[in-house]
This record gives sequence, structure tokens and C-alpha cells, in this order.
Amino acid sequence: MPQEARPPRIQDVAKLAGVSVATVSRVLSNPAIVSAATREAVRDAIRQTGYTVNFTARNLRQQQVGSVLALVPKLANPFFSQILSGIAEVLRKQGLSLLVLDTHGATDQPDLQAIAPYLNRSRSDGVIVLEGGLDPALFARPGCPPVVQACEWSEGLDAPRVLVDNAEGGRLAAAHLTGLGHRDILHLAGPRDNTLSQSRRVGFLEGLKAAGLSDTRRIEGDFSMRAGHEAAKAVMAMSRRPTAIFCDSDEIAVGLINGLVAGGLRVPDDISVMGFDDIELAAYVMPPLTTIRQHRAPLGRRAAEVLLARMQQKQHDDSTVLPVELVVRGSTAAPAR
Amino acid sequence: MPQEARPPRIQDVAKLAGVSVATVSRVLSNPAIVSAATREAVRDAIRQTGYTVNFTARNLRQQQVGSVLALVPKLANPFFSQILSGIAEVLRKQGLSLLVLDTHGATDQPDLQAIAPYLNRSRSDGVIVLEGGLDPALFARPGCPPVVQACEWSEGLDAPRVLVDNAEGGRLAAAHLTGLGHRDILHLAGPRDNTLSQSRRVGFLEGLKAAGLSDTRRIEGDFSMRAGHEAAKAVMAMSRRPTAIFCDSDEIAVGLINGLVAGGLRVPDDISVMGFDDIELAAYVMPPLTTIRQHRAPLGRRAAEVLLARMQQKQHDDSTVLPVELVVRGSTAAPAR
Repeated sequence: MPQEARPPRIQDVAKLAGVSVATVSRVLSNPAIVSAATREAVRDAIRQTGYTVNFTARNLRQQQVGSVLALVPKLANPFFSQILSGIAEVLRKQGLSLLVLDTHGATDQPDLQAIAPYLNRSRSDGVIVLEGGLDPALFARPGCPPVVQACEWSEGLDAPRVLVDNAEGGRLAAAHLTGLGHRDILHLAGPRDNTLSQSRRVGFLEGLKAAGLSDTRRIEGDFSMRAGHEAAKAVMAMSRRPTAIFCDSDEIAVGLINGLVAGGLRVPDDISVMGFDDIELAAYVMPPLTTIRQHRAPLGRRAAEVLLARMQQKQHDDSTVLPVELVVRGSTAAPAR
Repeated sequence: MPQEARPPRIQDVAKLAGVSVATVSRVLSNPAIVSAATREAVRDAIRQTGYTVNFTARNLRQQQVGSVLALVPKLANPFFSQILSGIAEVLRKQGLSLLVLDTHGATDQPDLQAIAPYLNRSRSDGVIVLEGGLDPALFARPGCPPVVQACEWSEGLDAPRVLVDNAEGGRLAAAHLTGLGHRDILHLAGPRDNTLSQSRRVGFLEGLKAAGLSDTRRIEGDFSMRAGHEAAKAVMAMSRRPTAIFCDSDEIAVGLINGLVAGGLRVPDDISVMGFDDIELAAYVMPPLTTIRQHRAPLGRRAAEVLLARMQQKQHDDSTVLPVELVVRGSTAAPAR
């Protein structure tokens, strides 16, 4: 086939792939809704024809800014990195960029005033909120682009939620530890007003109840290594020491284990410890961490897909709860006799 | 003093603090150039009067967009979190927001096209580049706002650089390990074309030479835990095993230690391992990691300060090399007899 002088058009792609122009357009704008076989055929045809989308023209046509804004409570927390990376990956295929704004857990008026100007169609085509603590009124103002909540959520905000099943994570943790024979389990929890911690707590207590346990001790802190390290001192000082500890994050668990080992305890021989999240680190610390895996990049990708659907006026109910799974490694074992 | 009906003005703050209006303005716009005592007096007066800056009006007046853009090669890498947090902290005091764009290590044309529109005064008031691999031509186009390079750098880009002393870090590592008595030291290095790795290598070889060693083996990889874990297999297979290993990142070191311990070696009894960076984790893994500390939040803050000076047309030579320091923890010891 001789190379034609004019640049390839979408019609050329459709013809070569044997599909309609609308299907090619769908592959370009929302590939998830097209069958894998069709997707491949269209992509082959795109490669063969050398067809390229003129994103700038398309953005102008659709009056898009070309970027999506993510609001995160604290950029310094590496937990968000992979979620943001998943979001950016999906947006990028649509010719959209991800801009990230650190809200610093904004709750006071000056902070909210700094965020407000960005929540406007003149500044971004859509917003993904990764923080449960923002005032919902921020997103109710005229001109606010479509909004999706991811990971954390606010009860007062009427926007789709893409979450992991935090309660199921709590249940899996309780089932694992009670299944090993533990009866005295401490819960190192995140902040009481955090929706993630609340959901994990509910599931954890349900799981304990299913094993015939009615009560468990709890220490509250934040999700940091430092909080876990602090808690180790409290654990060492307990007259009746728990045989297992469930932590609301892997970082808490890593800090806790460091403190327990420094205090002369062996993990898991003297005390079992498990985390939550399955950050990369969990597999590499010694002992490797038993934990609840959150698929963070897929969570980010799904949040971006839901936002794109919203931006295209598809208003079906697209909230999503993604599954979690138990990952058993070396930090948990049956209690010592 | 009875509350006045009109909102407090900058003149009220100046009067109460006993300084000029210009001084109050400097405290608001560039506090680093005002003495600590004056700064405190002005801030007290701001608190007492309840004075607030109308940032939106100020931005319009100065024709500012109100935001600075940071370009990072990979958001999924938690190394950048604290640097970005330091940048945001300084910008925030000036009423500026930080927007972060993931460049995905962009080197091909479509990726660069996606970044280019943001490098314009209509989109951002300044740019901080945290990646050494971007085409300098991107920043030479008309309308590009002031640019500062931080952490990594590109030889071809004429913009101030805010770096840590990577070569000194390499020298300190060599001095520490040779000082313990090690003579056979392996270097687990980052990518050969990365400017950070190159600088650390130069300093490391200098340090070895100062101790009378002329040669050291090197394995190259990326900066990840996975790379360290892979390298452990190569180390275990060596007929002449090194007694110490210097890693170009803490993540490499954590992955390496995991692999060595899984292979039956003890750290530091059988083999010493040290890292680079001093990420939070370094203090909490077992054994806690000997490493070279990079002050990442101060690096971010300094980069933001240099950018602000550029934005205010202060063109003095403001490149900065920040010191690093050796942090000795439990992962290094004298070689076994």
C-alpha cells in the first residue's frame, strides 16, 4: 500500500480495522468499554496507518484545559505515590496531564481559599479528591468540574467513590490472627475520625466476634512509623502483653517491630505483628510483613476511569469498592505455648 | 483597644510592630531576608490585628497565576515526597500553590509535547525541575517562566541548581567503610547516565584512593529495592565475596539486605551494607541502616526560595550545594577476622 500524501484520518483506521469510526473513537477515549479483540485490531490499524490524535485541537474542540487535578492531604506521605501514578497512567492515554495539589489537610479558611480557585473548569477538567477531611461546600460552587473521591471519602460529598474494601481488610486480619490461635490481640489504629480507620475497625471487630472474641484493646495514633515505634514502648510496659498486634498501616507495623526487637522481643516468636496496605517495603523488611494488600495503582486507574466517564457526561452509578487480600509472610505465627 | 469596623490594613500592622509598611511587605513576600526579631514582631502584629492578605487581588496585580510547577520523573518514587513537601511549604507562605506534573522520564516527542504547554507564564509563575533527563530546549521557548533545577540536573540547562553534595557523600561512605578496615568493597550503583550516580561514584573512588585502594567492583541497576534484591543473588554467587557493600540508595540497601539474609548471611557480622539518602525507613529496618543523609525537605525549601528570588528578578548567582552527613547505625561493622 503506497503512502498517501495527506495525513491518515480516523476513517482510514476504521476501514483497516473493519470497525466503525465510533468504535475507533471509543478505543481512543475509553478503551475499557471496548472488547480486547476489537481494541487490539484498532490499535494495530492505528500503528499501520500512523494515525495520531491531535490532542491540542481536540482539547480546544472540547473546551478542555487538558489537565485533571488531584487533591492529596500530604505529599510527604509515600502512600499516595502509586495511586497518583495509576491516575496519571490512565489520563495520559487520553492526552490529559495530572496536576497534584497538596492540601496540607486544609481545614481552616485561608487554606480552603487557596484551593478554591483550582476547583473551576477554567483551571482543570476534573478533580480527584484523595482526602476525606475537606469541606464538601468547596465542591458545590458554580463552575466546579466533575469530582471523584478516591481512597478516602467524605460522608457529605456527593461524588462517586473509588475505595478499597477496608472493612473486609479488618475481617481478614482478625480471621488470620484468630486462625493462628491468638486470643489476646491489640489493635494499633489510625486516627479515630479517619474514615479508613473506622471501616477497618468495624471489620476487625466483626472478625473477632466471628471467632468468639468480644473485646480487643486499641491504641490510636497516626499511620506513621514513628507512631508504631512509640506504641512499642506502651506494649513493652503492659502487664498482660498481647500475643498479636494488628496495625492499620505497614508503616506503623515497621516502626512497631523495630521498637519491639530493640526491647528484646522476637517477631513472630514472642509476638506476631501484621500491617495494612502492602507497600513495596512490606516484602523487604525483616521479618517480611504479613499484611492486607491494597491494589493502589489499580485504585488510581479506576478513579481516573470513573472521572473520565463523568467528564463525558456518563452519569451511571460508578462508585467502586475494590477487593483487598491477605498476604501472609513471616511476621505472624501461632502464639508461643 | 476596641475592634474597628473596617478590616485591618497593612498600615495597622506596621504601626503596631513599629516598622515600615515596606518591612511588613517583605515579611509577607520574602521573610528570609528580614531579621528573626523583626519577623516575629511583624507576625505578632499580624496575629493581633487579624490582618489577612488578599492573595487573589495580589496575584492579579502582579499578573501571577498563583502556582509553581514541579516536574518529577516518577511520582511513584517516594523519594520525592519530602522534597515536594519542602517546596510547597515555602510557596504556601507566599500564597502560591505547588502543582506537580509527572513527566514519566519523558524523552520522546509526544511526551515532551504534553509538558510544553505548562512551561508558560499563562500556566505557572515558575518551574522547579527535579529531573536531569529533560531536553533543555523545552525551557528555552518564549514565555517560559523562571526555572530552577533541584536534586538532579541537566548539563545543558542554564538555570540555578540546588543540589546536595553527592561527591562528598561518596567520599564519606568510602572513608567510613575503609575506616572500619574493609579492603574489598562492592559498589551497588544507580544508572550510569544518571548525574547523581556519576557524582557519587567520583567521590567514592576518591575516598577509596585516599585509603590506598585503587579499584572497586561495581554492579549497576536502578535505585529500587528490587534492584538491591536482585544484586544479592549476584553477591552470593561471587567466588571472592566483598566484605562491605556501598549502595547508591537506601532502597537498594534494604532490598539487598533482605536478599543476603534470605541467603543465610548475617548483616553486619558477615557483610556490611550501607545506603544513601536516609529516607525515614532507614532508621526503622533491622538492622537500622548506616547511610548518607540528604536533607530533602531543606533541599525543597531552598529550591523554592531560589525560584522566588528569580521570580522577583533577583539574578545573583544562587546555585546551592547543600551538605550531606554520615549517619552510622547498625548495618556496618569491622570485617570478620
